[in-house]
Amino acid sequence: MQLTALPDSPDELRGLIRKGELVHPTSGMAPGRVQANLAILPRDLAFDFLLFCQRNPKPCPLLEVVEAGETEPRHFAPGADIRTDVSLYRVYRDGKMVSEVEDLSEFWRDDLVSFLLGCSFSFETALIRAGIRMRHMESDTNVPMFITNIATTPAGAFSGPMVVSMRPIPREQVVRAVQVTSRFPAVHGAPVHLGDPEAIGIADITRPDFGEPVDFEEGDVPVFWACGVTPQAVAMSVKPPLMITHAPGHMFITDKKDEDLAVL
Amino acid sequence: MQLTALPDSPDELRGLIRKGELVHPTSGMAPGRVQANLAILPRDLAFDFLLFCQRNPKPCPLLEVVEAGETEPRHFAPGADIRTDVSLYRVYRDGKMVSEVEDLSEFWRDDLVSFLLGCSFSFETALIRAGIRMRHMESDTNVPMFITNIATTPAGAFSGPMVVSMRPIPREQVVRAVQVTSRFPAVHGAPVHLGDPEAIGIADITRPDFGEPVDFEEGDVPVFWACGVTPQAVAMSVKPPLMITHAPGHMFITDKKDEDLAVL
Repeated sequence: MQLTALPDSPDELRGLIRKGELVHPTSGMAPGRVQANLAILPRDLAFDFLLFCQRNPKPCPLLEVVEAGETEPRHFAPGADIRTDVSLYRVYRDGKMVSEVEDLSEFWRDDLVSFLLGCSFSFETALIRAGIRMRHMESDTNVPMFITNIATTPAGAFSGPMVVSMRPIPREQVVRAVQVTSRFPAVHGAPVHLGDPEAIGIADITRPDFGEPVDFEEGDVPVFWACGVTPQAVAMSVKPPLMITHAPGHMFITDKKDEDLAVL
Repeated sequence: MQLTALPDSPDELRGLIRKGELVHPTSGMAPGRVQANLAILPRDLAFDFLLFCQRNPKPCPLLEVVEAGETEPRHFAPGADIRTDVSLYRVYRDGKMVSEVEDLSEFWRDDLVSFLLGCSFSFETALIRAGIRMRHMESDTNVPMFITNIATTPAGAFSGPMVVSMRPIPREQVVRAVQVTSRFPAVHGAPVHLGDPEAIGIADITRPDFGEPVDFEEGDVPVFWACGVTPQAVAMSVKPPLMITHAPGHMFITDKKDEDLAVL
């Protein structure tokens, strides 16, 4: 499959992925459609994880929950199958990755609950449309992410620090960046912090905990958004007997348009 | 206790309620503070009810969940006790009201999960501040509420029609009413419908299913907001072995300010 010849339709893209004909990070695919982080947990952890998301909507913006015994995200992607429609999954047992697979058939159990969470692709699209450059895209690197000293609000077994992504924004565009992302609380929303990295426990802005460093230009301000790595890190720290996620960059492509999620 | 001599502090008000010295509907108390609907259910229904709220944020805007074994809404009212700090509770067994009490001690069990949900007081305050008259307040009646043909999104055992409240708004203020309430998604948010009642299954606007009818003036448009009666009606239809709610009008007074809930 030529990446340049990909269909725009989320349904057709998921069809290719389901057939194993498209195993590739999904950034840039189905422009304008919401892509989602995936976390799958056994039912006995589901209430606490759902509550954790409710209490921490910025790092864990919940889009949809597919209940135990079901496999179709019927609100965000009617007809899709959560077991086959992500191109690459990671399977963890007791907090350790045991497998990377294109299909969950051999791991699926009827007590698994799937959580789809908003990802930053949607708000980055909105920022770019507002004329704000994304430095990490220009350098073709992963966005830099940092573990902060901001505590999430615990729920049951789940707790831990918030992870943020950082984007350098020209000083004169910072207010606009806040406004634009405030419209999208379902995909992390407004920044959690502007400016001084040390204020949120980041000692060295050039050494991210995940992703890659990005260059600053004269007059750039570091702007920090809550990051979808947070719920995965928090869930993993509990070392669940079984947990399944998408592989980094291999998101679940939904039918919803970014604008469907805008609050105003 | 003279109602005119009441303290403004939520903490002091809850203290009076806890001691049984204030048993009265809470409308107008602690101006500017968020008041909440209360629904208490056994743990084995809690995941489905939490998911129902997540799927239906307009009728069921979840403010806080107090987990099984806990009694303090520590995010919205640190130091409060959910078993004593509402002035009048209703206790239902198998869907039937069995008791109205000022204190839950004799009914409390360690498997009960408490849900605090946004109520319309906050957005009515915002509407009034914007210069929009509330006809039902002027006539000192309860807001009229209607069962609609709008289906909620089911979750597990929970499903049913959305209940809405209706306020007549002068035609030239309808847009402003939409804007003002859009800022407060945590207390039902923007209207779900404007104009023609029949379009949402309301046959006679003068005969509400709950509350009291309200007079229209020349040029008024009926504006409909999702109503907190919805989650109670939906939960009750499952006939849970035990369910506890606030008595109508006797809300839980939180420490949060209305503006704390504004999205923009």
